[in-house]
Amino acid sequence: MKRTYLDHNATTPLRAEAREAMIAAMDTFGNPSSVHGEGRAAKSLVEKARAQVASALGADGADVIFTSSATEAAALFCAGRGYAGCDLEHDAVGAWITPDLAVDENGIATITDPANTVLQLANSETGVLQSLPEGLAMSDMTQAFGKVALAFNWSGATAAIISAHKLGGPKGIGALVIKRGTDVPAQLKGGGQEMGRRAGTENLIGIAGFGAAAEAAARDLADGKWDEVARLRDLLETTIAAAAPDTIFIGQGAKRLPNTSCFATPGWKGETQVMQMDLAGFAISAGSACSSGKVRASKVLTAMGYGEDVASSAIRVSLGLETTEDDVLRFAKAWLQKQQKFHARAA
Amino acid sequence: MKRTYLDHNATTPLRAEAREAMIAAMDTFGNPSSVHGEGRAAKSLVEKARAQVASALGADGADVIFTSSATEAAALFCAGRGYAGCDLEHDAVGAWITPDLAVDENGIATITDPANTVLQLANSETGVLQSLPEGLAMSDMTQAFGKVALAFNWSGATAAIISAHKLGGPKGIGALVIKRGTDVPAQLKGGGQEMGRRAGTENLIGIAGFGAAAEAAARDLADGKWDEVARLRDLLETTIAAAAPDTIFIGQGAKRLPNTSCFATPGWKGETQVMQMDLAGFAISAGSACSSGKVRASKVLTAMGYGEDVASSAIRVSLGLETTEDDVLRFAKAWLQKQQKFHARAA
Repeated sequence: MKRTYLDHNATTPLRAEAREAMIAAMDTFGNPSSVHGEGRAAKSLVEKARAQVASALGADGADVIFTSSATEAAALFCAGRGYAGCDLEHDAVGAWITPDLAVDENGIATITDPANTVLQLANSETGVLQSLPEGLAMSDMTQAFGKVALAFNWSGATAAIISAHKLGGPKGIGALVIKRGTDVPAQLKGGGQEMGRRAGTENLIGIAGFGAAAEAAARDLADGKWDEVARLRDLLETTIAAAAPDTIFIGQGAKRLPNTSCFATPGWKGETQVMQMDLAGFAISAGSACSSGKVRASKVLTAMGYGEDVASSAIRVSLGLETTEDDVLRFAKAWLQKQQKFHARAA
Repeated sequence: MKRTYLDHNATTPLRAEAREAMIAAMDTFGNPSSVHGEGRAAKSLVEKARAQVASALGADGADVIFTSSATEAAALFCAGRGYAGCDLEHDAVGAWITPDLAVDENGIATITDPANTVLQLANSETGVLQSLPEGLAMSDMTQAFGKVALAFNWSGATAAIISAHKLGGPKGIGALVIKRGTDVPAQLKGGGQEMGRRAGTENLIGIAGFGAAAEAAARDLADGKWDEVARLRDLLETTIAAAAPDTIFIGQGAKRLPNTSCFATPGWKGETQVMQMDLAGFAISAGSACSSGKVRASKVLTAMGYGEDVASSAIRVSLGLETTEDDVLRFAKAWLQKQQKFHARAA
């Protein structure tokens, strides 16, 4: 059966540019810490990718510390610092903060003390975008990077975390980006890699893929390719709203990522929808991938004030650059058929 | 100029099997945490590699927790546990231990309380192999895995750390291996990956490469391919000893890895030798790659009782499966020429 992947916020297919850079990097096998020619060639590949990522993120002059994931970057920057935040954050950030800040019905957080607060730029489940206050301690830019115009240097944040696999790079490589001079003691010790902030031999092939993917993502963004994705996302929502007017769309009252649609059919469990659509050939999700497998109400939707009935029956459809109008219309048709069956059973 | 790579203990060229598995994995792009078909395919790739690594390490039934490096695995298992150890350990382990155990002139450590001690299986600078005592808390098997016959399940150790890039796999992927039931609280939080011990989306391509490399390494080892490497290493040492009888070979009195030779010419700085040989087309090292760039006496040789003169003038030549007799003889000839010039200048 033809498969249609509509779960790009969970992870993305590898971009051709990343694949090519990674295969090329397979021949550059030296240890970047070695002083000989093979080592220097490897080091130069790491530094090229670092510059590519910094440029794509609008972070020239900032320090890009490669980590194995945004999760590791979150731990590296946030552990032990006692930052405030809200329940919109991904669990990788949520694990280190006190989530007591208010969130309104559109998914917008209220920040009172930016210097001691973390705030995501885009929510992975709803796509809702935040305005970052000047002097913010840290922003999780993982989901926004590559999809909306942003520059770390103009964002107001002192630090950011990002991940390659959300923008067409490989899984297993991310970065902590910090304004130069910010103090970040190493958690992984025993080597001087990453300016002493993160020991361990570098993921050379992954780093090369991240650099190439970031560069390509920035180019596609500048070329306006996400405008078409936004059109398809809107088409999806209008198509579904027209046929199933009882559907609750989440976050439509706020600025959102161009590719994300989150909607609920109270009583029809999100996990059930994911499984039914999977059988029909469509990959979507309920909540973030990292917490999937657990059938539970979305923490994000609960924070926005939705009750258990809505929060446990929402799904996320997240489009990618390769998504076509046909993909979207076929999905809408298949999903509407299942929804009608659900209503028929429930009636 | 033809380059000859003799620094395999720093890192190794990517094996063909690993390259092939990684390129194949580039098409399996799902998030292993996703419940849909794409996610399950990715998860199955991770689990296949986990079984390959466990089997190659003789660790069937143990838990293999993938990390971004042996360095991360060391931090995950050792941080905050206050283990004892000795100065032979790599800095990635040394960072977490009290290094007060005695080491003899052959590089063998004396262990008194195995349950609270870590001990490497092979030293990366000298190749010296330790006998692990029953009930040892943790062993750094990074340098030994793939080069000598070993089985985690028979090693006496409760835990081990390993890395893909020392046996022909990619850089940026390692593992903590533990007897089932050993308590390992997560340091990276916010996702249920790796049985709750290590959050973060998995390095799918790297993990696939690790699995394939480990399987191929185990096969080559079983096929006796390192016996030929040991013959070449011995040829290197006898050739050099015959022409330069003042050379001090380190660790020859102990069992060693088949591929490693460490030797010193007092007064001729190791870093200088590395640079001279690099210019002559040969990649070797002085000390471990992770600490290179710093001109300092080897902590390992100092622990073995060697003085500053020897400890700062040692080099490591580490052969690989692709090393030929011609490589070794050309290296010996080039090195002996430089050594004669050094003696001529010093005279």
